[in-house]
Amino acid sequence: MKNTLIKVDLNTPPEEQDVLHNRWHPDIPMVAMVNPGDEFRVECMDWTGGQIQNDDDATDIKDVDLTKVHYLSGPIGVKGAEPGDLLVVDILDVGVRDESDWGFTGLFAKENGGGFLTDHYPDARKACWDFHGIKTSSRHIPNVEFAGIMHPGLIGCLPSRELLDEWNKREKELFDTDPDRVPALCTLPYADTAHMGRMSGDEAAMAAKEAARTVPPREHGGNCDIKNLTKGSKVYFPVYVKDGGLSMGDIHFSQGDGEITFCGAIEMAGYLDIRVSLIKQGVKKYGVINPIFEPSPTEPRYSDYLIFEGISVDETTGKQGYLDVHTAYRRACLNAIEYMKKFGYTGEQAYAILGTAPVEGHISGIVDIPNACATLFLPTEIFDFDIKPNADGPKNSVTTETDLAKAK
Amino acid sequence: MKNTLIKVDLNTPPEEQDVLHNRWHPDIPMVAMVNPGDEFRVECMDWTGGQIQNDDDATDIKDVDLTKVHYLSGPIGVKGAEPGDLLVVDILDVGVRDESDWGFTGLFAKENGGGFLTDHYPDARKACWDFHGIKTSSRHIPNVEFAGIMHPGLIGCLPSRELLDEWNKREKELFDTDPDRVPALCTLPYADTAHMGRMSGDEAAMAAKEAARTVPPREHGGNCDIKNLTKGSKVYFPVYVKDGGLSMGDIHFSQGDGEITFCGAIEMAGYLDIRVSLIKQGVKKYGVINPIFEPSPTEPRYSDYLIFEGISVDETTGKQGYLDVHTAYRRACLNAIEYMKKFGYTGEQAYAILGTAPVEGHISGIVDIPNACATLFLPTEIFDFDIKPNADGPKNSVTTETDLAKAK
Amino acid sequence: MKNTLIKVDLNTPPEEQDVLHNRWHPDIPMVAMVNPGDEFRVECMDWTGGQIQNDDDATDIKDVDLTKVHYLSGPIGVKGAEPGDLLVVDILDVGVRDESDWGFTGLFAKENGGGFLTDHYPDARKACWDFHGIKTSSRHIPNVEFAGIMHPGLIGCLPSRELLDEWNKREKELFDTDPDRVPALCTLPYADTAHMGRMSGDEAAMAAKEAARTVPPREHGGNCDIKNLTKGSKVYFPVYVKDGGLSMGDIHFSQGDGEITFCGAIEMAGYLDIRVSLIKQGVKKYGVINPIFEPSPTEPRYSDYLIFEGISVDETTGKQGYLDVHTAYRRACLNAIEYMKKFGYTGEQAYAILGTAPVEGHISGIVDIPNACATLFLPTEIFDFDIKPNADGPKNSVTTETDLAKAK
Amino acid sequence: MKNTLIKVDLNTPPEEQDVLHNRWHPDIPMVAMVNPGDEFRVECMDWTGGQIQNDDDATDIKDVDLTKVHYLSGPIGVKGAEPGDLLVVDILDVGVRDESDWGFTGLFAKENGGGFLTDHYPDARKACWDFHGIKTSSRHIPNVEFAGIMHPGLIGCLPSRELLDEWNKREKELFDTDPDRVPALCTLPYADTAHMGRMSGDEAAMAAKEAARTVPPREHGGNCDIKNLTKGSKVYFPVYVKDGGLSMGDIHFSQGDGEITFCGAIEMAGYLDIRVSLIKQGVKKYGVINPIFEPSPTEPRYSDYLIFEGISVDETTGKQGYLDVHTAYRRACLNAIEYMKKFGYTGEQAYAILGTAPVEGHISGIVDIPNACATLFLPTEIFDFDIKPNADGPKNSVTTETDLAKAK
Repeated sequence: MKNTLIKVDLNTPPEEQDVLHNRWHPDIPMVAMVNPGDEFRVECMDWTGGQIQNDDDATDIKDVDLTKVHYLSGPIGVKGAEPGDLLVVDILDVGVRDESDWGFTGLFAKENGGGFLTDHYPDARKACWDFHGIKTSSRHIPNVEFAGIMHPGLIGCLPSRELLDEWNKREKELFDTDPDRVPALCTLPYADTAHMGRMSGDEAAMAAKEAARTVPPREHGGNCDIKNLTKGSKVYFPVYVKDGGLSMGDIHFSQGDGEITFCGAIEMAGYLDIRVSLIKQGVKKYGVINPIFEPSPTEPRYSDYLIFEGISVDETTGKQGYLDVHTAYRRACLNAIEYMKKFGYTGEQAYAILGTAPVEGHISGIVDIPNACATLFLPTEIFDFDIKPNADGPKNSVTTETDLAKAK
Repeated sequence: MKNTLIKVDLNTPPEEQDVLHNRWHPDIPMVAMVNPGDEFRVECMDWTGGQIQNDDDATDIKDVDLTKVHYLSGPIGVKGAEPGDLLVVDILDVGVRDESDWGFTGLFAKENGGGFLTDHYPDARKACWDFHGIKTSSRHIPNVEFAGIMHPGLIGCLPSRELLDEWNKREKELFDTDPDRVPALCTLPYADTAHMGRMSGDEAAMAAKEAARTVPPREHGGNCDIKNLTKGSKVYFPVYVKDGGLSMGDIHFSQGDGEITFCGAIEMAGYLDIRVSLIKQGVKKYGVINPIFEPSPTEPRYSDYLIFEGISVDETTGKQGYLDVHTAYRRACLNAIEYMKKFGYTGEQAYAILGTAPVEGHISGIVDIPNACATLFLPTEIFDFDIKPNADGPKNSVTTETDLAKAK
Repeated sequence: MKNTLIKVDLNTPPEEQDVLHNRWHPDIPMVAMVNPGDEFRVECMDWTGGQIQNDDDATDIKDVDLTKVHYLSGPIGVKGAEPGDLLVVDILDVGVRDESDWGFTGLFAKENGGGFLTDHYPDARKACWDFHGIKTSSRHIPNVEFAGIMHPGLIGCLPSRELLDEWNKREKELFDTDPDRVPALCTLPYADTAHMGRMSGDEAAMAAKEAARTVPPREHGGNCDIKNLTKGSKVYFPVYVKDGGLSMGDIHFSQGDGEITFCGAIEMAGYLDIRVSLIKQGVKKYGVINPIFEPSPTEPRYSDYLIFEGISVDETTGKQGYLDVHTAYRRACLNAIEYMKKFGYTGEQAYAILGTAPVEGHISGIVDIPNACATLFLPTEIFDFDIKPNADGPKNSVTTETDLAKAK
Repeated sequence: MKNTLIKVDLNTPPEEQDVLHNRWHPDIPMVAMVNPGDEFRVECMDWTGGQIQNDDDATDIKDVDLTKVHYLSGPIGVKGAEPGDLLVVDILDVGVRDESDWGFTGLFAKENGGGFLTDHYPDARKACWDFHGIKTSSRHIPNVEFAGIMHPGLIGCLPSRELLDEWNKREKELFDTDPDRVPALCTLPYADTAHMGRMSGDEAAMAAKEAARTVPPREHGGNCDIKNLTKGSKVYFPVYVKDGGLSMGDIHFSQGDGEITFCGAIEMAGYLDIRVSLIKQGVKKYGVINPIFEPSPTEPRYSDYLIFEGISVDETTGKQGYLDVHTAYRRACLNAIEYMKKFGYTGEQAYAILGTAPVEGHISGIVDIPNACATLFLPTEIFDFDIKPNADGPKNSVTTETDLAKAK
């Protein structure tokens, strides 16, 4: 019988569950202690804590409160873990909860977070996904079905005081370079909606003012949104505080490299089965700054791809960038979207496919001044029609008139 | 019997061979015409045109004349090709020339081009590689051997006049933002060392002043340095001028995603076996801007990787970037180098391994403000020792005291 | 919420559950009807119906009643299915039941069924396996852990009367060639322990006398023990009776090609998530005799194998066979076992590894008279030590003194 | 510059070239000596020594003299190799000779060798293949093109006197069980066409009477026809005589598991690049009987297969076999052929596709008495049309009326 270490109730507001937290702070108390070698289950809410519904109205996406994300399960203490150790985490399984076997992908409104292509797709939209065992399809995106690559978008250990201070300092400096930007350059501490787990009273109130938001990936891992952290992978996390303090959440049923839609992957509630062990003083022994990991032998693999290139030239202004991979990947994505539109998809549908299907985003060339070359690998086998080029030109192959849900 | 369409003599200076050119210009005359459906062989010099020697002195790397690169074979005309068509190129084979079965990797001096990590490794260095059939090893980098993924670093069609003008305009604007930068932000037209193929006299002299340098990848493909364009792949190139004008060169025996050492891959002379066909008006039919391609079923594939993460924080200043994949990938590379050093490699050796072995560089997360998350997949099977972490810590596993050659 | 079509209680004897049956007969009544397009869950007992315990005593393996196997869930009717159609079955998921997250592998005694190498390993033995999410390990076989490739060992539709008669006729003829052989050449109808599902009374008693045993694979599929029928695969089954009558069971957590230990794979109770549809008259349209299937993109894949060869020469007598793949594969298996023993495994442990880990068994050569050449691909990554040959010779790498359980 | 150790002239009869031999005997003199660590090239004729032409008449296939095959290059001595050692052979490359870039597949007449399906396809037929770099296609089999998996069908060391005697004894015993069978059960020594390399005079004449034919794979490897011995693989061969005596030939451009057409693969002349080393006393250290090998990371890999099953029931008589994988694989092959015929191929074309394309033949189940279950994995991506089943039924997709050549 599987040992469920952390139970989460999907019908209770996340603010009322003290095994959850939505900020990073060194003083958040452990909610459970385990021994090296232990295996256990951790239940998780979806990253928004239940703000999004399985329906055809994107109003919830439009109005989502992003100051509340991400609701994480933990922190979990590992006996004997000390700063400087590596916490070895085997992600043994990732699964769907029976009472919530669906997921969602959102395009956030530009005024409320946006996404990678928000200048092209500024409005709130939503796709809901049905799960069919290891596969998924969406009533909002026809003619596509694929095997998921389930993974936690967010996992890592509590930061030390010093690390937290460093985060706050450097992010504030960036923010201050353009404080009025929409969307913002980064997300600063925000006490009002902070959920500090089992901290309470003044201590929690004080900590909330400085606790780091969970949005970016950082040295500890965190919100890396790496699709390859799937069941069967093994991760080596730096430890910064006594007992480690491992927290996790933001489970994705599937995601493409980059998670370009931001809300992004196929988001879901679910659970993680975990095994932990320690490499004492591993940070120094192996010279580790960010987490290292080994992938799973069961990742979905495809042999037939259509690959799109992009370079560092802005698509709107024509301005030449300098080895700018961000722009290059955006161009590659836009190229893929234009291509898919020729087969009958709307731009929003194509955008959502790139965010959710197991597309690969490669940094192919990064030294040939001034253009980086990014490549986007689109697996052709996810479509139920032939999407490759031929002499006859594309056929309109999308068989259902539907689209991502709008806000009503 | 294979039809060798373009023969190149490795012992003749490239300037004296009119089947080569080292600039992009719409008026460079075709050196050969073929029909759709034809298969043929194209011989190529290495990208520098023979400036680098197989020895233990990096002086040639230090003093390389980068205004001369890349020497390309072509342009080849395809009967019936017109602007707006897609030229379909099957890369049937890529091979080594019997008289030149070795390759080189250089770290350029910071004053002369530099590379992805030039601030960390500013000096000229060189590694030479021996080829063992499909595998390669270097006397300058012990304990590592891997299967190559041979490909043309550079391939594409001649630009139109309009496209050339656009390139020159946008690149000049970038250059002018910091004209004294070392290394330069980009490479502007430079007539002195231009080789305009079969153009001659005043026409050539005039064209040389405006002909685009071959360094960056651009809309037509060009110097994409995509390791996946290996034998067995199929590429769809936009056509801009009558007959297409396909040129190619810069053959690599192997390369990691990003070609981070700049000179970079394992550079070699060699040949390409090519088959061409056309999709009439394919640019519009499929909405193509940059080339699209399909990969080969014979790419070397590994199942066991060690994966390093990097985020958009500058390693020297600690400054926070904004979704900066360039920095994130640099951090991932530096993390991998520090790790490999624990097993006995020098930084330069580790750097060269990342530039040459079939490492994968992924854009894993690009929306979690302000940090992008880049991941570097290092195949562990290329080492003849176990490079994965364990509780005992790393062993010094590099068995030979050697290093990349320095300039004497 | 997943629709569980067939519920099975692991604590109730299988004979008392009318959604199970352990014989093939055209007249077994459907236990449920579904529509084409439906998705549903089917729960299953392990193949023995609960005869084997999770302990360190192989007495249950020694005394197992093989006349009772396999307990199948079904038959399930699909509305509109008629003889000559193809029933398309998507195996959406295969999973473990929370109350039974372990598995077993048995070497049957030679007197009671035996196995592929029963002349070498004639005694009853047992290994129990713990599941760790997608991975498994056994306290009886140290230093090995691998990702499962969960699949139904047995699945197929009810035979027609004609097909059943053909089976009975040909198998009886074989049996009669050596009726006293131990183990028997095949398993003939046996009414005493027949469970005819919802048939009852005289009808059941009559049918039980002729109902086919479930041991062999046959035209309808049945007990194929194909490890590649894992979650994500799609199977096309011939339909022989009105409504099809799809039954399934014998779930394996993992298995090597051949299932050489007979009991064999890692056997478990569990569930299957299924989606069905029809190709009307597909048998004739596609010329189908046996089922056809498409594999899953999520099979565990390894790139590093050690491959053993075997030829058609009997290991005991030295007698030359004629293109005998059975002997060739046995020799390849024995070669692999001898090799593994050099690293410290007992023969029984090595035998069980070949039966359970995702080894590949290939028919490499079958025309070079008189020897067939079979090859066994052993994935090296399942071991926690380096099992490849080197100049120093093998090291004793098995760290725990343990072995498969014996009968006490 | 590659060291060509053995040169072979394709325009000289093989009998006149003393670096070739076509029998196995311990006393055949080495034609060259190398040191452990050496790399070198070995040129080879095709297996028939040039009997087959690139034309549209299968008379040469009909009349082929099979007593002459296989012409092997060698034997090569490795200094220091002694009986009981393992000779480690890296197959660095396998290539086509410029003057002979084509291959052939033959269906032998039943009276002259036959093939796996000779009872179904008893007549001599021929397909010729054009090579396109790493890919191949045949004018006799339209709508199919695939990447080759080049390998030596035959490679191994000279047998000892004792081993030779054992081979002769056991094969003679088999032959004598049905000496008049057509095709024969095995190929006994035959002096008339023996080519004993550099043996000459009476010694050669005597040896020829007992020298083993090269047709079957045996303990030393030999004619294994394992498609996975491709460039990049590493093989460990037992050594039986002083200096080893490694010989090789029968190069295939591609082959399916089983080489079911017998002549079988795509046969070609070519070359092998080889590196050798030794594991002293490796036979005993690792318990080796037959060769062991590690595969290449560059094998062509496909993710999309159609898989056919077969069981041990004879297709003509309906007779039930006993765990007979030979019959099971034949049924799987016949099932695949019937399927392919529905799309427009002739039986002979489909048969030749299975013999040459990289199909996988698995021993899926071998314990479920009385039926073995063999599976044939057909990669769907080798066809230029969609060959998977769907509700509409198959379309006639073969666009050219052509077929394998007949004997005129």
